[in-house]
Amino acid sequence: MRLLLINPNISDSVSDLIRAEAQRSASPGTEIEVLTAPFGVAYIETRFEALLGAYAAAQLAAEHHARFDAVVVAAFGDPGLTGLREALPVPVTGLTEAALASAHLLGNRISVIAISQRIQAWYREVITSYGFAGRLASIRALDRPLSAIGGVQEEHAAALQALAERAVAEDGAEVIVLAGAPLAGLARTLKGRLPVPVVDGVSSAVRHAETLAALQPGQALQGSFSPPPVKPNRGLSPALQALLDRNALR
Amino acid sequence: MRLLLINPNISDSVSDLIRAEAQRSASPGTEIEVLTAPFGVAYIETRFEALLGAYAAAQLAAEHHARFDAVVVAAFGDPGLTGLREALPVPVTGLTEAALASAHLLGNRISVIAISQRIQAWYREVITSYGFAGRLASIRALDRPLSAIGGVQEEHAAALQALAERAVAEDGAEVIVLAGAPLAGLARTLKGRLPVPVVDGVSSAVRHAETLAALQPGQALQGSFSPPPVKPNRGLSPALQALLDRNALR
Amino acid sequence: MRLLLINPNISDSVSDLIRAEAQRSASPGTEIEVLTAPFGVAYIETRFEALLGAYAAAQLAAEHHARFDAVVVAAFGDPGLTGLREALPVPVTGLTEAALASAHLLGNRISVIAISQRIQAWYREVITSYGFAGRLASIRALDRPLSAIGGVQEEHAAALQALAERAVAEDGAEVIVLAGAPLAGLARTLKGRLPVPVVDGVSSAVRHAETLAALQPGQALQGSFSPPPVKPNRGLSPALQALLDRNALR
Amino acid sequence: MRLLLINPNISDSVSDLIRAEAQRSASPGTEIEVLTAPFGVAYIETRFEALLGAYAAAQLAAEHHARFDAVVVAAFGDPGLTGLREALPVPVTGLTEAALASAHLLGNRISVIAISQRIQAWYREVITSYGFAGRLASIRALDRPLSAIGGVQEEHAAALQALAERAVAEDGAEVIVLAGAPLAGLARTLKGRLPVPVVDGVSSAVRHAETLAALQPGQALQGSFSPPPVKPNRGLSPALQALLDRNALR
Amino acid sequence: MRLLLINPNISDSVSDLIRAEAQRSASPGTEIEVLTAPFGVAYIETRFEALLGAYAAAQLAAEHHARFDAVVVAAFGDPGLTGLREALPVPVTGLTEAALASAHLLGNRISVIAISQRIQAWYREVITSYGFAGRLASIRALDRPLSAIGGVQEEHAAALQALAERAVAEDGAEVIVLAGAPLAGLARTLKGRLPVPVVDGVSSAVRHAETLAALQPGQALQGSFSPPPVKPNRGLSPALQALLDRNALR
Amino acid sequence: MRLLLINPNISDSVSDLIRAEAQRSASPGTEIEVLTAPFGVAYIETRFEALLGAYAAAQLAAEHHARFDAVVVAAFGDPGLTGLREALPVPVTGLTEAALASAHLLGNRISVIAISQRIQAWYREVITSYGFAGRLASIRALDRPLSAIGGVQEEHAAALQALAERAVAEDGAEVIVLAGAPLAGLARTLKGRLPVPVVDGVSSAVRHAETLAALQPGQALQGSFSPPPVKPNRGLSPALQALLDRNALR
Repeated sequence: MRLLLINPNISDSVSDLIRAEAQRSASPGTEIEVLTAPFGVAYIETRFEALLGAYAAAQLAAEHHARFDAVVVAAFGDPGLTGLREALPVPVTGLTEAALASAHLLGNRISVIAISQRIQAWYREVITSYGFAGRLASIRALDRPLSAIGGVQEEHAAALQALAERAVAEDGAEVIVLAGAPLAGLARTLKGRLPVPVVDGVSSAVRHAETLAALQPGQALQGSFSPPPVKPNRGLSPALQALLDRNALR
Repeated sequence: MRLLLINPNISDSVSDLIRAEAQRSASPGTEIEVLTAPFGVAYIETRFEALLGAYAAAQLAAEHHARFDAVVVAAFGDPGLTGLREALPVPVTGLTEAALASAHLLGNRISVIAISQRIQAWYREVITSYGFAGRLASIRALDRPLSAIGGVQEEHAAALQALAERAVAEDGAEVIVLAGAPLAGLARTLKGRLPVPVVDGVSSAVRHAETLAALQPGQALQGSFSPPPVKPNRGLSPALQALLDRNALR
Repeated sequence: MRLLLINPNISDSVSDLIRAEAQRSASPGTEIEVLTAPFGVAYIETRFEALLGAYAAAQLAAEHHARFDAVVVAAFGDPGLTGLREALPVPVTGLTEAALASAHLLGNRISVIAISQRIQAWYREVITSYGFAGRLASIRALDRPLSAIGGVQEEHAAALQALAERAVAEDGAEVIVLAGAPLAGLARTLKGRLPVPVVDGVSSAVRHAETLAALQPGQALQGSFSPPPVKPNRGLSPALQALLDRNALR
Repeated sequence: MRLLLINPNISDSVSDLIRAEAQRSASPGTEIEVLTAPFGVAYIETRFEALLGAYAAAQLAAEHHARFDAVVVAAFGDPGLTGLREALPVPVTGLTEAALASAHLLGNRISVIAISQRIQAWYREVITSYGFAGRLASIRALDRPLSAIGGVQEEHAAALQALAERAVAEDGAEVIVLAGAPLAGLARTLKGRLPVPVVDGVSSAVRHAETLAALQPGQALQGSFSPPPVKPNRGLSPALQALLDRNALR
Repeated sequence: MRLLLINPNISDSVSDLIRAEAQRSASPGTEIEVLTAPFGVAYIETRFEALLGAYAAAQLAAEHHARFDAVVVAAFGDPGLTGLREALPVPVTGLTEAALASAHLLGNRISVIAISQRIQAWYREVITSYGFAGRLASIRALDRPLSAIGGVQEEHAAALQALAERAVAEDGAEVIVLAGAPLAGLARTLKGRLPVPVVDGVSSAVRHAETLAALQPGQALQGSFSPPPVKPNRGLSPALQALLDRNALR
Repeated sequence: MRLLLINPNISDSVSDLIRAEAQRSASPGTEIEVLTAPFGVAYIETRFEALLGAYAAAQLAAEHHARFDAVVVAAFGDPGLTGLREALPVPVTGLTEAALASAHLLGNRISVIAISQRIQAWYREVITSYGFAGRLASIRALDRPLSAIGGVQEEHAAALQALAERAVAEDGAEVIVLAGAPLAGLARTLKGRLPVPVVDGVSSAVRHAETLAALQPGQALQGSFSPPPVKPNRGLSPALQALLDRNALR
C-alpha cells in the first residue's frame, strides 16, 4: 500500500517531522511519500493562508495521486480536503479529520492543543464544519513566538504539556489532540505524562488512510462528493485540467 | 493482537455473522473472539432491551477482558459502551461509534440503513449522543417482519439496497452505514452496487480497535472516562465486583 | 393513589431521605413506597454505575409495578428511565426529568448543584439527552470527599448553598436544582436563603407523577415508547420475562 | 388555593371552554377564576396579535393578581408570560409552557396540533424560545376556515384526530399536544382514540400552577426574572404603574 | 425617502441622540423623523418593559407609518419588530436586527456592549431568536447605576471602551456592537480606538432601511409575515383597528 | 466611491450580468468595476471548483484592490471571502453573505433558489458556516442541464419562479434568495410575481458594500480577521506576496 502525504506549506523541516511520524505509525508493508508545497507560506494560521495552501495541495495531488492508494493533506485544518475528496479517485483524509475520528473513539469531550493564538479561530471553524463543535472542550494554544517551525515541539515541550494538563483540569477534556504537523510525534513523548488519551494527527491519518484503502468502501458516483461535473475550464495546470476532465471519460 | 467482540444479544446466528466479517476485516496477526450474551433478547430494538444488553455486555466484559488488547460491543447502538470505556483498562469501541468514525472520513452526510422501523428511535438517540445528529442525513429501515434474525441480509437484500439508493437520491446521503450486527458483511456485497461509499460496523470496529491498540493513546486516569471511584457495592458478580475494585489498587 | 419510588442504589440511608421528602410533598391520599436496589453501588456517579443501577431498577420495577399508579426512578440521572417508560404500563418519571419540568416553569437558565465532581459529566449527558442543554446555565459540585452518603446535605450544607449562590451570581442561573437523592429535602431548608427559586427532584417527581396519574394522558401503543416488540428472550428473571411478554397478550 | 386564568383574547366562548376544563382538572379545594381580555382580537394567530394580547394580559394581571396564588396566561403561545414572570409576585405559567412540561414527562418527540395554518410559525417560535425545538416532531394544523372560535373542537373533531394520527405515523410523534385554548378539553375526548399520550394545555397549566403554589420554590430576587428595576414611567394604568413600583418598596 | 424612527421609551433625551446619529448616517435626500413613546418607561431592560414598549411602538406605528417609506424600532432589543413586520405595508427594522446585519458583514464572532447588567438576558434572548446565538462571542455590560439615560455614553465612555477591549481580548470578538439607543453615535467616537470594527445600531438601521426602501424586495402576501388574517377585534385605538383591517380591503 | 466586483469564474457572459445589475443597484456616484478570473471554470458548483475560484479571486484582489473602497466576491458561495477579509485593507463581502444580510431584515425563514442540483451541498455548507443554517427553510434547484451559463435566467425563467413558489408554499419560506451570479437581476423581474420578498445577491452586495464604505466601521487589527502574521513565503505572485507582507510594514 502506498500513501501520499501532502504538506501544503513550504517548510521542509515540517515535512521531515511528518515523514518520521508517518513511518513510525504505518503498518508493515505501507510505503510513505511526503511532498512539500512548491509555493505558499511557512505554516498556515489563517483562512487566507489556508486558501493558498489548498491550491498548492490541489496542484500536488493532481500531479501525483495516480501512484497512490490514498492521499493525506498533512496540515491540521485540512486545507483543500473536501475539494480533493470530490476530485480524486482515491480516499483522502487530513490531520484534523483523522485526529477527530481517533479522538471520537476515546472520549466525548476533546481539547486541541495548538501552536499559536492566531491559529485557533481557523481550527475552530474547520472542526465546526465537521460537526464536531459540540465535542470540543477547548482549544488552547502557545502564546509565544516560534523561532523555527520545525523545532516547536522541542522548544515548547513543557508549555505544550502544561496546556494539555489545563485542558483536562479546567475544560473537562477527556481526550487531547496535539494539533498541527509541527507537533507530529509529540503524542508519543507526552503519552505517559498526561492523565487522558493523546491523539496525533499524522499517525491517525496514516492509520485511517490504510483502513480506507483496505476496506475499500467505494467511490462516490452520485451526490456532493462525486467528481465535479465537466464544464469549460481555462488557465489551469495540465494535471488540474486532467483531474477536472476525468469525469468526462465516464 | 487479540480482540474481544461481545454480542450483547442471545443470537448465536448473529455471532456467526459477526465472527465471519471480523475475521475477513482483521489485519494479519489479529485474533478474533466473539462471545454471545448468556441472557437477554434475540436482538435489541428498544431502550429497554438495550438496558438489558448493556448489563449482559458488562458481565461478559468484566469476566473476559483481561485476555484481550481491545474490546468491541458488537451491536449497533453500542449498549453499555460508554460505561465500559470507564471501567475497562483496554480500549473499547462499538459498531455505531466505529461506523461513524469511518463514515466521517468518507462524506459529510450519513444515512443509516436499519432492519426494523422500531429500531430507528434508539439509533437516532445514540447517534445524537455522539454529537453526530448534524451529520445524519436519514435513517431508513425495513418495514417487514424478520423471519430469522441471522438471515435478514439474505432475505431482504433487495429491499436493503433499495433503502440505500433512496437515502442517496432523496436524503442527500454521501455515505451509507449498514446498521446492525445482523447486516455484518453486507457492505461487501453491496459495495459495487451503490453510488456512494458503504460502511459496515463490524469491519470498522475491528480496524479501529486495531488502530487504538497499535497507537496506544493511553488510558484515562482523570476525567469522566477514568475508572469509577471506589465505593461500597453489593450483590454483583465477582467479575463485576473486581472491575469496580480495580481502581482501589491504584 | 399509590406511587413507587425506586432507589437504584444500595444505600438505605438515602432511601430514608427519599421517603421523608416524598411523604412531605405528596398530596393528601397519596401513598408512597420506596424500594432499595438489592445489588449495585452506594451511589451512582458514572456511566458504568448507571448501567448497573438501571438494571437493578428494571428488576425492581418489573417485580413491583403492578401495585402502583406510577413509578419514579429515584436517582438523579434517571438510570433506566427511558427503557422503563417503554416497558411499564403506568407512567414513569425520574428525579432529573421531573426537576427539569419544574425548573422549566420557573426560569430559563437552570443550574444544577451536585454532590461530586465526577458526577457532573454523567448529569450533563442525561440533561442533554432530554434536550435541555440549551437551558443549562451550569453544573457546580462539591469537591470534597463524602464521609457518609446519607449525611451529605448536613455535612456540606454551607458549601452547597455557596455553590448555588455562585451559580446565580456567576453563571446567570435563574433557577437552582439540587441534584441527587442524597440532597432530597434540602430545597426546603435553602428556600428562603437563595435569591432564585429552588427545585428538589424528589418532590417534583412525586407531584408530577401524581399529575400524570390524575390526568391519565394515555399509554403509548405506537411509536418508540410503546412496549418492546415480542421476540425470543433467555436467562432473565421471571418478572422481567413477564414484562417483555406483556405485549404478546395484546 | 386560588388560580387566575387570563384569556388574552376577547372571546367569551373560549373563556367558557377554559373554565370548564380548568374546573375538571383542578384538585379538590382549588378555586378557578377566568378573565377575558377587554381589548384585542378574537384569537391570536400572529406575532402582531400576540403583542396586543400580551399587553391585555399584563393589564388584567396587574389589576387582579393580588387575590391569587398563581396566574395562568390561558392562550397557547403564552403572550406576555415571560414578562409577567418578572413582574408578578406569584408563580405564572402559560398553556404552551405547561403543555411542554407535561409532554416532556411522556415522550421525547412532541407534535402540536393547531387550529390554523397561520398560527404555526408563531407557535414554533415560542416553542423554540423555550429550548424545545429539538423535541418538536411537527406542528400540524387545520387548513379550513373556522366558523366560530368557540366551536372549533366540535366542528373539526375528525380532522383534528386525523392530524394527530398523521403526526404519530409520519412525524414520529411520541406525545400529542392539542394546542390552543379553543381545544381545551379535547384531550379527554381523544384520549382513548390515539396511539400515544395526549396533552391538554389548560389542564396541564392548572396542575402545574397548583404544584408551584404548593411546593413554593421561592421568588426570584436576583437575575433576569427578578422584578424590573424601578425607573421613571409615564402614561400607564394605575395597576401597571403599581406593579412597576412594587420593587421600589423592597 | 422618508424614514420613521420610533423610540419605544418615554425619554426625549434618547430620542435626541437617535435623531442626531440618524441624520449623520442618512444618505443625501433621506428625511428622518423620530417619535417618542407617549407611555412606558425611561428605558427598557426587561421582558416586561419590552412588552409595554412593543405596545407603544405599535400604537405609534399604526398612527404614523403612512407617511414613510420605512420604519425603524429605535431600541436595541427591537420591541414589537416582528409583529410590526406583519402589520405594516412598508419595510421595518430595529436596532438589534440592523446591527447584526452589519456585524455579520465584518466578522464572525460578535460582542455586544450594553448599558446595564440586567439588560443582558433580554438582549441574549432577542439575538438568539434571530438565529445569531452561534455568532455571539459575549455580551458585556456596565455594572454601575446610570445617573441620566441620555448621558450614559459621556458619563461611562472609558468603561464602555474598556468593555469592548476585554470582549476582543478575552472573548474573541471580531466585531463590536454598541447596543442601545442611549449609545447612538458612540461608535463614531470609539472607532479609531478599538482593534476591531465597531457597529452602531441607529446608523445601521438607517442605512439598511434605506437599502430596503431602494431595492424594494416586495411585501409578504403569504406566509408568516403577511398581514394578520382579518377577524373580530375590540377596544383598540382607531389606528390599530385600521391596521388590523387593512387586509380586509385586499 | 469605487467598488470592485470579482467574478471568480472565467465566464464573461456572467460578468456582464453582474455589471448590469450592479450598476442598476448602485447609489449615485458609485463606480463599478467587474473583473473576470483569468483561470478556473465556467461556474462553480463544487468544493473543488470553489478552491480554484478562491485562488483566482485572491490573485485578482491582490492585484487590483488598491484602487477601490470595497471589494465584492461576485459568486454565490463567496469563494475566498473570509480569507480576503483578513488580507485586504478594505471591506469585502460576497453574494451569499450579502444576500443573507438582506434576507435577515425581511423574514426569518429563507429559501435559496439555485441553478443546479449539484450546487446545493456547497451552498448549504457556506450558509451553515455563516451561522444561518437555522434560518434556512430550503434550497431548491433546477434539475435540467444549462445550455449556456449566461442565459440561465432567461432559459429557465418559469422553472425558477415555480421553485420559488414551492419554497413558499411547501417549505415555509418567508424570503426568497435568487442564488448565483448567473441569476443577477432576476429578482427585479420576479418581484411582483412572488408572494414574499425576493433578494438578489449582486444588488445586496453592492448596497452593503456602499454602506460599509460609508460608515467606516474600522479595520481589524487584532483577532482572527486582522492581517495574517508575517512569515516566510515562496513562489507566489508579486501582488499576493505584497499582500502577505503588508502587515510587516505596520
